[in-house]
Amino acid sequence: MARGSKSAHPSDTNDAHGTVPPIDDPTVAALDAWWRTANYLSVGQIYLLDNPLLREPLTRDHIKPRLLGHWGTTPGLNFLYAHLNREIQQRDLDMIYIAGPGHGGPGMVANAYLDGTYSEIYGAIDRTADGVKALMRQFSFPGGIPSHAAPETPGSIHEGGELGYALSHAYGAAFDNPGLVVAAVVGDGEAETGPLATSWHSNKFLNPVTDGVVLPILHLNGWKIANPTVLARIPEGELLDLMRGYGHTPHLFSAEADEDHASVHRRFAALLDTVMDEIADIKSRAALGTLDGRPTWPMIILRTPKGWTGPKEIDGKKSEGTWRAHQVPLSNARDTPEHTQLLEQWLASYRPDELFDEAGAPVALATRLAPEGDRRMSANPHANGGLLRKDLRLPDFRDYAVDVPEPGATTAEATKVLGEWMAEIMRRNPATFRLFGPDEVNSNRLSPVFEVTERQWDAELRDGDDHLAPSGRVMEMLSEHQCQGWLEGYLLTGRHGTFTSYEAFIHIVDSMLNQHAKWLKVSRGIQWRAPVASLNYLLSSHVWRQDHNGFSHQDPGFIDHVINKKADVVRVYLPFDANTLLSTYDHCLRSVDYVNVVVAGKQPTANWLTMDEAIAHCTRGVGIFEWAGTEREDEEPDVVLACAGDVPTLEVLAAAKILRERLPELKVRVVNVVDLMRLQTTSEHPHGLSDKAYDSIFTTTKPVIFAYHGYPWLIHRLTYRRAGHQNLHVRGYKEEGTTTTPFDMVMLNDLDRYHLVIDVLDRVPGLGARQGRLRQEMHDARLAARLYTRAHGEDIPEVEDWTWPDDVGGKRTLSQAGTSTGDDNA
Amino acid sequence: MARGSKSAHPSDTNDAHGTVPPIDDPTVAALDAWWRTANYLSVGQIYLLDNPLLREPLTRDHIKPRLLGHWGTTPGLNFLYAHLNREIQQRDLDMIYIAGPGHGGPGMVANAYLDGTYSEIYGAIDRTADGVKALMRQFSFPGGIPSHAAPETPGSIHEGGELGYALSHAYGAAFDNPGLVVAAVVGDGEAETGPLATSWHSNKFLNPVTDGVVLPILHLNGWKIANPTVLARIPEGELLDLMRGYGHTPHLFSAEADEDHASVHRRFAALLDTVMDEIADIKSRAALGTLDGRPTWPMIILRTPKGWTGPKEIDGKKSEGTWRAHQVPLSNARDTPEHTQLLEQWLASYRPDELFDEAGAPVALATRLAPEGDRRMSANPHANGGLLRKDLRLPDFRDYAVDVPEPGATTAEATKVLGEWMAEIMRRNPATFRLFGPDEVNSNRLSPVFEVTERQWDAELRDGDDHLAPSGRVMEMLSEHQCQGWLEGYLLTGRHGTFTSYEAFIHIVDSMLNQHAKWLKVSRGIQWRAPVASLNYLLSSHVWRQDHNGFSHQDPGFIDHVINKKADVVRVYLPFDANTLLSTYDHCLRSVDYVNVVVAGKQPTANWLTMDEAIAHCTRGVGIFEWAGTEREDEEPDVVLACAGDVPTLEVLAAAKILRERLPELKVRVVNVVDLMRLQTTSEHPHGLSDKAYDSIFTTTKPVIFAYHGYPWLIHRLTYRRAGHQNLHVRGYKEEGTTTTPFDMVMLNDLDRYHLVIDVLDRVPGLGARQGRLRQEMHDARLAARLYTRAHGEDIPEVEDWTWPDDVGGKRTLSQAGTSTGDDNA
Repeated sequence: MARGSKSAHPSDTNDAHGTVPPIDDPTVAALDAWWRTANYLSVGQIYLLDNPLLREPLTRDHIKPRLLGHWGTTPGLNFLYAHLNREIQQRDLDMIYIAGPGHGGPGMVANAYLDGTYSEIYGAIDRTADGVKALMRQFSFPGGIPSHAAPETPGSIHEGGELGYALSHAYGAAFDNPGLVVAAVVGDGEAETGPLATSWHSNKFLNPVTDGVVLPILHLNGWKIANPTVLARIPEGELLDLMRGYGHTPHLFSAEADEDHASVHRRFAALLDTVMDEIADIKSRAALGTLDGRPTWPMIILRTPKGWTGPKEIDGKKSEGTWRAHQVPLSNARDTPEHTQLLEQWLASYRPDELFDEAGAPVALATRLAPEGDRRMSANPHANGGLLRKDLRLPDFRDYAVDVPEPGATTAEATKVLGEWMAEIMRRNPATFRLFGPDEVNSNRLSPVFEVTERQWDAELRDGDDHLAPSGRVMEMLSEHQCQGWLEGYLLTGRHGTFTSYEAFIHIVDSMLNQHAKWLKVSRGIQWRAPVASLNYLLSSHVWRQDHNGFSHQDPGFIDHVINKKADVVRVYLPFDANTLLSTYDHCLRSVDYVNVVVAGKQPTANWLTMDEAIAHCTRGVGIFEWAGTEREDEEPDVVLACAGDVPTLEVLAAAKILRERLPELKVRVVNVVDLMRLQTTSEHPHGLSDKAYDSIFTTTKPVIFAYHGYPWLIHRLTYRRAGHQNLHVRGYKEEGTTTTPFDMVMLNDLDRYHLVIDVLDRVPGLGARQGRLRQEMHDARLAARLYTRAHGEDIPEVEDWTWPDDVGGKRTLSQAGTSTGDDNA
Repeated sequence: MARGSKSAHPSDTNDAHGTVPPIDDPTVAALDAWWRTANYLSVGQIYLLDNPLLREPLTRDHIKPRLLGHWGTTPGLNFLYAHLNREIQQRDLDMIYIAGPGHGGPGMVANAYLDGTYSEIYGAIDRTADGVKALMRQFSFPGGIPSHAAPETPGSIHEGGELGYALSHAYGAAFDNPGLVVAAVVGDGEAETGPLATSWHSNKFLNPVTDGVVLPILHLNGWKIANPTVLARIPEGELLDLMRGYGHTPHLFSAEADEDHASVHRRFAALLDTVMDEIADIKSRAALGTLDGRPTWPMIILRTPKGWTGPKEIDGKKSEGTWRAHQVPLSNARDTPEHTQLLEQWLASYRPDELFDEAGAPVALATRLAPEGDRRMSANPHANGGLLRKDLRLPDFRDYAVDVPEPGATTAEATKVLGEWMAEIMRRNPATFRLFGPDEVNSNRLSPVFEVTERQWDAELRDGDDHLAPSGRVMEMLSEHQCQGWLEGYLLTGRHGTFTSYEAFIHIVDSMLNQHAKWLKVSRGIQWRAPVASLNYLLSSHVWRQDHNGFSHQDPGFIDHVINKKADVVRVYLPFDANTLLSTYDHCLRSVDYVNVVVAGKQPTANWLTMDEAIAHCTRGVGIFEWAGTEREDEEPDVVLACAGDVPTLEVLAAAKILRERLPELKVRVVNVVDLMRLQTTSEHPHGLSDKAYDSIFTTTKPVIFAYHGYPWLIHRLTYRRAGHQNLHVRGYKEEGTTTTPFDMVMLNDLDRYHLVIDVLDRVPGLGARQGRLRQEMHDARLAARLYTRAHGEDIPEVEDWTWPDDVGGKRTLSQAGTSTGDDNA
C-alpha cells in the first residue's frame, strides 16, 4: 500500500471515535493473541504437513508437496473475527459472520478452532499438537477439506467459491431475525461483480423492527489475482460517495503494514464500538417508533495490506501488500533451504511458543475472546439453519381445489389458485415464509397473497403504491441474483420460501443454482448439518406463452441445467392444471435439502383432474389418462401419446380427440408425466420408475409420440436406458424465431395437435386408406391456422374455442403401473 | 409523480445551463413535432390494425384483437432520440443509441421510420398511409416484428429483452472508436440488476484518447411492472452521491406531467448542450494531454412520468405516472365505445393531422431533426458492425507450433503457446482485437500477450502494478457479465475478440449467451445485417484441474447449455494439446456469426500431434490415432477407446498403453473428437458426420468406451441417432465431492486409465483367462493410487511421471473416414 502516513490516518472517518472509551491493554493483548494464533494456524494449513507447532527446525519434509489455498485475504478475515468476538462478548450479540472472500477458508477454519467449535464437531482435531497437525494436514489435501469456507466449515452459510453473493446471503439471513446481527465481509474483488454491486441496495428492503441487522464490511486489500481492485483505486471521496449513495453511513479505516499492531487494534476497536453504538441506536429508535424514514445503516471500509503480516519480500519482490500475496506467496517453500527458512521465520513471527501450551492447546489468552456456546459465530445455530427449521403450518391444499366435474369442463389460472393457498400459508406462518421474485408476483398471478401481506419496501412510500409496506412477506427487486441470494440466505438460516420468475430469465441464476446444489449435496454428507428447506422455483410466464415478448423471452433450458446436478438433490415437476399444481407445491414445501423446479402456466387453462385424481397422479408422477385414450382393456395400444407440461398436455388431448373422431379403431393411450425424474431409471434417480413399470406404461414396442415442454433432447436423455426408447419421438421447443399467438408458436415447433396427428400417421403401421386423407386435412388445418393468425393477430377460433368433448363420459380413471416413491421425501 | 412543483425544478442540477444559448422557437417546434410523431406512431403500433392516420373515427375494428407491447418507457426514449438528433445535426456527431429498456421497441421503430432508415430497408413500409398502416400492423403481430429493440430494428445493437447490459454494450461499442459517442439509456428497472449496477464502473476502463464516449442517461420513470424502482425512491442526495461514487458528474433533469412541453424541450436542450460541451471539453483536453487523471464523465438523470403523454386516468385510476402505464394502459380499448374513444382522444392528442401530409408521409417539420445518411442513429454503420468488420491480420499459427518428434515426446502449456500467437495478433491488429476476462489472463497462461500490450486501466496507477496502462488490449474486471457485455458490444460494432474465463464460472453468463445466440440466429435471417465476428470463449482452468478450489469450481455444463442453442450458431471444440489449440483458434478467429466454445488446458501436458497432423485432425474434427491403437489393417477393431478433452485423451492413451502391453492380441482403436458437433448427424448440425463416416470410425457393433471432458449425457445426446449408440459407454464428470490432486479427481469419476481398462474388460466378449487377473490388478492400482494421494498429497509417481512409449514407433498416422466440412466457415 503506497499511500498515507502511518501516524496520521487522515482518511479515517472517525466520526464519533472520541466518545467511546479506549480498550484496555489486556483486551489489546487478547485481540492480538487471537489474531496471531488464527494467522499462525492459517499459514500452517496452507503449508504444513508436520511440525505443527514449530517445535523443531522446519525442514522440507514438514511442508506439503502441493501448496494450495489462499493467504491474501485471510489475515484481514481473522482480524475482523477477533474484533467481532470482542463485541459479542461485550454486548451479548447474536451474530453470524459471512466471509465473502471464500478463499479465506483457512482463516474461517482457524477461527472455528479457536472458538472450540471445530474440535467439538470433528473429534480428531482436538486441542493437542496432534489435533493441530490434523487440522493443518486436512486443508486442501486429498480426502480433506476444500480451501473455501465450505459446508464443512462450522459457522458458514456462504462458500464464496463463486463470488458476488455475500450481502444477498447476509440480508436473507437477517430477514425475520430481529435480534440477529450479520457481519458480512465483502472482498474488494467480489465488490466488482454485478450481483454484489446491486446487493448494497438490499438495505431498502430491510425493516429495522422486524428484521435483523447487516453490517457490511468492505475489505479493501487492494488486489485480485493479478490486478488491483477498482474500489481501491478510486479517490476516497468517490468511494465514500458510493457508499453514501448506496444508503449507508460509511466508516473508513486504514491499517498500514508498518503500523504497530496494538495501535491498530485500539483504533479499530474504537471504530467498531462506534459502529455498534450506531446500530444499537437505530434499533432502539426503530423499536420506539421514533425513526424518521429509512435509516442509513453504518458500514465499514477496512483498508489493509493484502497478505498482511506475511513476508514483506520474496526473492527480491514485494509480497505483502501486493497481488503476489493473493494465493500461496511462498510457493517455492520446499525448493531451497532459504525459502524453507523464510517460511519458518514467517511462522515464527506469530510467536507460536506464546500461543500454545505444552500439550499443544491454544493458551487462555489466545481464546479469551471466544464467546460462550451458541454465541460463538462458528456455533451460532442460524449458521446451521436446519437446527432452527420448523415445518411450515400448511393449510390443506385440498381446500383450495378447483371443481372439475368432467375433464376440461372448467378453467382456471393455475398460479392464481396456488396464490390463494399461499396467502393462507403466509397467514399461518407470519415470520418463516417469504416469496421472492424480480417483479412478477402479480404478473405470475400470485396476487391473492396481497390479501394477506405486502411487498416489503423500506424506501420512500407514495400515494398509489400497490401493496408496498415497511414489512411484508413478498420481496421484489428487479434482480434475479438478489432474489436467489436472499432466498438462499433465508433458507440456510432455517426458514422457507419460494422464488417465482420468468422461465427464460431464470438462467440468470444458473451459476447460483450450481453452487447451492453443490452446497446441499455436500451438506447431506455432513452429519452435524441439519436439513434445510428446499429451494423451490415456481417458473411461470413460460416458453409457450411469450405473446408479448417473443424470441428473447423463450428458453426452457433451466430444466436441462438443473438435471446436470446431483440426482438426489434436484426435482423437476410440470403440473398442467390448478389441482396438480397445488398437489405438487404442497409436496415441495414439505421437502428438505432439494432444489425443486416447478414450471406452471399462469394463463386460464382447462382443468383436467379432480383433486383426488391430481393427488394420485402427482404421487405417481406419471400415469395414463384412460379417459382420454381409446385403448381397450387387456390389449396393448397402437400408439402412446405422451405429454409433460400444460401446453403439450392440451395439444396431446386435442390430437387424441381428432384421432378418436377420425380413426376410432386406433387404440391410443394418453400418458402424462408430471414428475420428470420418473422417466429415469432407478439407478439414475431415486424417483426413477422401475423398468417394468415404465414398460407397462410406455410399452416396449409401440410408437411413443411425446410432446414435451422444453428442449426435446432432455426426454431422450432421461429415457435413454429404457427398452422402448427407440420408438420414442419427441416434440418440444426448438430455437426458432418469434411469434405472437400461442398456437402459432406451438405450430412453429411442430408441437401442435395437427402435427402430432401426422406424427401418429407417420409412425403407426397399417393405418389403411383413410390415413392419406387425414394427413392432407391436418396439413390444411395447419396452413389455415397459420394464415388466420397472420390475418387476424389471434388464434383461429377452432383452436381458441376448443373444448374437450364432454361426451367421452364414463371412464374417468387414471391408471398407471408405477409404484409410489413411498417415504421418499421428494 | 407526486413530487416537486412544475415551475421551480429545484432538483435540477443546472450547473452551467446559463452559459449555453437557449434554443429558438423553430427548434422547439421541430423537437416537439418529432416527439409527437414518434409517440403517435408508437401508440399506433401497439393498438392499431387500421385507420393509421386517424382520418376516420376510430372503431373497434381498427384495433388489434390482442394488445401487446409496452408503452411506459417509450415516450422518454422518443424524447431523448429527438434531442440527440438535434445534437448530432448541430455538432456533426458520430453517435449511436442504446435503448436499455428494450420494451421501448415501438419507439425505436418509430424513430428509425422518422429517420427514413426504416423505409429504405423495408420497402413495403414506405412513407404513405399504407406504409404507416403496415408499420403499425406488423408490430407484435404474427409474422411481424417482436416488441423489443431487436435485430430487426435498424440502429440497434442491443435487444434489452433480458435487462442489465445497456452500459456494458455501450462501452464495448466505444472501445477503439475514439470518434464515437454512445448514448446509453438505462431504465431504472434495469438499473436494479447486478450487471447494470457494476457496469457503471466501466468508466475506469475507458481511455479518453483512444476510445469513444459513453453518455449514460438514467431514465427514472419511477416504476417497473408493479413496483416502484429503487433509484426513484431514494433521496435525491443519495442518488447524486451514487452517481458521483460511480465516478460521474451527474446532471439531474425532472420533467413533470403538467409542464408545458415547449418549456421541457428548452430546458432539456440546454442541459444536453451543457453535457455535450463537457464531453467536448474532456475530449479536447485528453487530446492535448492536459487531462489530470481519469475524467468524471457527465451522465444524465432524466426523471419523467411513466407513460408520459398517455391517458391521465383510465377507469377512474391514475395511469400516466404510475405502474399501470407500463405495458398496454388501455388494454380494454376494444371492449366498450368509451374505451375506444379514449384511445382515439389519446391518439388525437398528438395532432396527427399536423404531422402527416396528404399522402401519409411525415411532414418536413416532423423529420427536420433527422441527420443525414450515416449520421442517423438508425443508419450508423457502428450499429450494423458487420459493415465495418475487416478480417483480422492473422499471423500464421503454424509458426507457433511446438515441436513433436514423437507423440508425447514434448510437453507444453497449451494456452501459453496460444498466448504467444495472440500477442502477435495484437501487434498486427492494434485497434480491432481485444482480450476480455475477469482476472484470468495470467492465470490462464495467456501472459505472453503482455509482451505486446497492457491491461487497459484508467483508474489510479501505482508502483508495482503489473502491466497496467491507460490503454491496452486486455480488459480485466472481476465481472463475467462485464466481460461478456463489453465483448458483445465490441463484436457487434465490427471488431474481434476473445473471452477467457474459468470453465465453472462461465455459467454466470449463461443467460447472456442465450441472448447473444438468439441475436445471431435472427440476424442471419436479416439481409441488411452484415456478419459480425464470432464470440469466442477460451475456457481454461477447467473441471479436471481444480486442485486449489475443489467442488465449487467444477462444472463443465456450459457446453450442454450452449448446445441447446440453434445448431447453425454454436460450435464446441476440445483441443487437447498446443498444436490442436492453435489450429482450432485460428479457425475460430476467422469465423463469423458463431459462438465458439473452446475448452483447453493451461497445465503442462504432453503434445501429441505435429502441426500438420493437428491441422488435419482439426479439419476433420474427429479421427483415429492409429499410432496409439493396436488394430490391424482391414480388420474391425475389438473395441474403440474414444476421447474428447485433454485429460480424457491422456487417460485413454494411458489405458491404450496398458492394453497394448497386457492384452497385445486385443485390437484397440483410439479415436479423438476435437469438434464435438461432428458427433451429431448432418440433419442436426452442419458439422455432423455422415452416418457412413461415423460408422467407419466408431463401428456399428463394437463396444465404444468414450472418455469425455464433461457430463457424460451430452455424448449420448449427440450420438443418439447413430447406429452404434447402443454400444456406447461414456465416462465423464459426475457431481461428486471435492479432491485436490488431478488424478484423484479423475478416479473419482471413473474416468481414470485403470477404470477404462476395466470398462474394456467388462464389454469386450471372449477375452479369456487373463482378463480376470488384469481386472484385479486394475482395481489394486486404483486403490494404491488413492491411498498414495491421501498419504502424500500428490499423485502417485507412476501416474505423475507417466509417459507414452516411444517404442511404438513407425505408424505415426492419423486416419479418419469423415469428409472435411469444406467451405463451411465453422
